[in-house]
Amino acid sequence: LDQMSAMWTAKVLGLAVVALPLGVELLLLLLRRLRPARTLNEVLFFPSELACVEHIFTSLSSCLCPLPHSVETSLSRLLRRVLSAASSLDLCVFAFSNMNLSRAVLALHARGVVVRILSDRDYVAITGSQIGVLRRAGICVRCDATSVHMHHKFALVDGRRLITGSLNWTLTAVQSNTENVVVTEEPDLVRPFAEEFHRLWERNDPARCLRRRK
Amino acid sequence: LDQMSAMWTAKVLGLAVVALPLGVELLLLLLRRLRPARTLNEVLFFPSELACVEHIFTSLSSCLCPLPHSVETSLSRLLRRVLSAASSLDLCVFAFSNMNLSRAVLALHARGVVVRILSDRDYVAITGSQIGVLRRAGICVRCDATSVHMHHKFALVDGRRLITGSLNWTLTAVQSNTENVVVTEEPDLVRPFAEEFHRLWERNDPARCLRRRK
Repeated sequence: LDQMSAMWTAKVLGLAVVALPLGVELLLLLLRRLRPARTLNEVLFFPSELACVEHIFTSLSSCLCPLPHSVETSLSRLLRRVLSAASSLDLCVFAFSNMNLSRAVLALHARGVVVRILSDRDYVAITGSQIGVLRRAGICVRCDATSVHMHHKFALVDGRRLITGSLNWTLTAVQSNTENVVVTEEPDLVRPFAEEFHRLWERNDPARCLRRRK
Repeated sequence: LDQMSAMWTAKVLGLAVVALPLGVELLLLLLRRLRPARTLNEVLFFPSELACVEHIFTSLSSCLCPLPHSVETSLSRLLRRVLSAASSLDLCVFAFSNMNLSRAVLALHARGVVVRILSDRDYVAITGSQIGVLRRAGICVRCDATSVHMHHKFALVDGRRLITGSLNWTLTAVQSNTENVVVTEEPDLVRPFAEEFHRLWERNDPARCLRRRK
């Protein structure tokens, strides 16, 4: 009887020795899977270093310009973030005169991404503004005429990635000023900006403005 | 012998029946504890509604001004976020003329919070700028003279809460413009801004500028 009992105890102990490390391993695997994937949170500071960005637009670039090549800068990162749009770009920007950012938006439009631009009425017509160029390319642009300044500088990529900060999309902002841009996929930050874009887009619907005037 | 074996099987099964729900319960408890606490992520949009903010500064307020009272607005939320500083406020702002925000910063300084302000050289002396008032109160102010514009509009509260966006600390920005402010404690966003403040603060150390000129 004692021998039998000892055998069973050994069996149970043996099972425990195998089960324990297996169980711990399984638990750790489960924890790793359950921990939410790291949300994208990136900060870009400007002025951006001067460097050629040709390779961002054309994969087979052998640009001969005198600027440094193959250097990752704040501007090149920003351009990549904008160009990452697969379905939509909602842009809400006070001043837009930067040729590189304009080229990126035109490239998105050309490949079928739905682009909507909201800008400030007073700054649309300033020298070097790209708004006219973008409009002529067939991109839908609305100008805010209701507030003193539509001073936002944000973009929503595919409705789920937010680009926002102090940076206007101008050459001075990118090359000369001390500026910041936050890139985030944090839903608690993206959602309010998406709602704000929708609100401003509807508020500045030209059809609605015409109705109001009648 | 068979009876013995059956007894042991019953014991093991009984143990399993007790251990399984206990184990599951323990696992769930562990998972709840391991999930990180929700990080603060808030967005404020401007223009802010017009409302009295006197109650934010004086707890026993019986203000008789004609503005609506006891209304929570974007400005009142922003003021509360600024006033929540317990040890330090690092402010990096292009234009600062808003009297309410100036009052909040002065209140922090008066209660011993270490305030450091970095502003744009050209905008320090504009009409209504509060920078002079803050400096005269004994707050340490440095002006950026190295870039075309020190265009940031961010603040770090106690080194761990970031306030950033398109909003300059002016009356027009708060009351008339379409603007945004992001408030976040996301470490991946706070850290780069803290480093940027440190970099700009050191770069604009007047002692260093004097040494450079010699």
